[in-house]
Amino acid sequence: MQVVDRVRALQALADSERRAGRRLALVPTMGALHEGHLSLVDEARRRADVVVLSIFVNPTQFGPSEDLERYPRPRERDLSLCREAGVDVVFVPAASEMYPEGSQTSVSVSALESPLCGRSRPEHFRGVATVVTKLLLAAKPHVAVFGEKDFQQLALIRRMVRDLLFDVEIVGAPIVREADGLARSSRNVNLDPEARGQAVVLVRSLDAAESALSAGENEAGALLDLVRAEIAHAPRAEIDYVELCDPQTLEAAPARLEGPALLALAVRFPPGPDAEGPPVRLIDNRLLHFKPEGEERP
Amino acid sequence: MQVVDRVRALQALADSERRAGRRLALVPTMGALHEGHLSLVDEARRRADVVVLSIFVNPTQFGPSEDLERYPRPRERDLSLCREAGVDVVFVPAASEMYPEGSQTSVSVSALESPLCGRSRPEHFRGVATVVTKLLLAAKPHVAVFGEKDFQQLALIRRMVRDLLFDVEIVGAPIVREADGLARSSRNVNLDPEARGQAVVLVRSLDAAESALSAGENEAGALLDLVRAEIAHAPRAEIDYVELCDPQTLEAAPARLEGPALLALAVRFPPGPDAEGPPVRLIDNRLLHFKPEGEERP
Repeated sequence: MQVVDRVRALQALADSERRAGRRLALVPTMGALHEGHLSLVDEARRRADVVVLSIFVNPTQFGPSEDLERYPRPRERDLSLCREAGVDVVFVPAASEMYPEGSQTSVSVSALESPLCGRSRPEHFRGVATVVTKLLLAAKPHVAVFGEKDFQQLALIRRMVRDLLFDVEIVGAPIVREADGLARSSRNVNLDPEARGQAVVLVRSLDAAESALSAGENEAGALLDLVRAEIAHAPRAEIDYVELCDPQTLEAAPARLEGPALLALAVRFPPGPDAEGPPVRLIDNRLLHFKPEGEERP
Repeated sequence: MQVVDRVRALQALADSERRAGRRLALVPTMGALHEGHLSLVDEARRRADVVVLSIFVNPTQFGPSEDLERYPRPRERDLSLCREAGVDVVFVPAASEMYPEGSQTSVSVSALESPLCGRSRPEHFRGVATVVTKLLLAAKPHVAVFGEKDFQQLALIRRMVRDLLFDVEIVGAPIVREADGLARSSRNVNLDPEARGQAVVLVRSLDAAESALSAGENEAGALLDLVRAEIAHAPRAEIDYVELCDPQTLEAAPARLEGPALLALAVRFPPGPDAEGPPVRLIDNRLLHFKPEGEERP
């Protein structure tokens, strides 16, 4: 496994693999790798000859009061996991490599930046679009794999890649969950044991909505109430948002669901009474398919 | 000579040339080709095996009251000139190919967008940065050649390419002039004969400033006054701006020039009394080098 920290070196490597007719896949991460990331590596391996995993905690996608400093950075453990997972190249650039001195260029995906997570994180998605553009230009992959947990990010990247004419295939990989159903996230380690126990309400609320929909409830308001009621079982959970929206445009879903709809939520767990620091913010989502009565799923 | 109108076809062509070990150069244009563009083709030919010239009148870099409709589009003549000049591939995409349905992604180079031309054309450079990003991703060149007449554009593209980690060399080529010194521009054909005659004041004003500097005048205010006085000889010329600035950052030059400084200007020629339409706006510039007394030029 090669560890590369220079953009020029990564580009030279990509050029040489491409000239040799090999396909490259990129798995962009912020490190603190878990089973979710490893499933992205598996997906990348199925689609390419050379798997590049990048580890870069991108400062421009964190707001001023967010957890940039606290974001876990277990570098040696990450490298071991990459080795075990069969990653070919790990790209670990310094911030100065990704943002050269005097940097002032940003990429913006207007309508997809503002809803959902964009409301409480106004600069976040511009930071994501900018860094993903850079990573795609640095690694020159044929395919890039992203987790569906960050659904808005994935929708935004798909849109950006299409708009900017990037010659790269964007692949989404399903959410990987803990034994109790909590979506895997690098931020889960920042939950204290009590909050960790309560965090299971996220997935339970998605399950509840999906069951109600299967039973014929397709009124968006009723489904959202159900989700909120489920989250209310966790006394320390504070809802950031719970929404139903169009999976491509992220516009609000109709009052009565008809086609596919994305149920997306973000919940904050503030520190316990004896602790300090920013809240731990978790997201989860599920793509719902309303099946009108009498219609069979394909 | 190949004429390609699809992004995917151009990308496939670039991939195949790259696999064969050949170097690609891109010359992005808006068509209405003149000697200036042909000098870019020559420069591209010196630096690459395959020269791609793109012709695309990019709507997003025109303001609502500007001359998008009136911009000349002599397609057949352009293709002949490309053939004569030895261009290998002409890329002539439709707007829907460059801006897929639902497009919403833009590229912004913050500090370099606002001064000079950015003041009277507030959205112009975001349009330029966005379309150049797309053209670089569509043509995948090793090198791209731009004219120094659009000096701010060139500075902005150099910055953008560095910031976004594009693996492409950006080359600037010197301004090409008409017999009387007027910088070649696709917009010159929109000047009526009287305005065309008066337009020579642009280059004369640059010459005047350069002579004064050579004679020891390095006060920015005095040089700018000289330029304005020269332009005032043309009764129909309206100054948009006349400025001295840092060639990289485009920040205002110091009150007394010390190092290299860019003298840049934009002048509008409104239609004559019996004509209609938007004014013809011309730009020109010169890189000045102050040489303190007793110091020899290298």
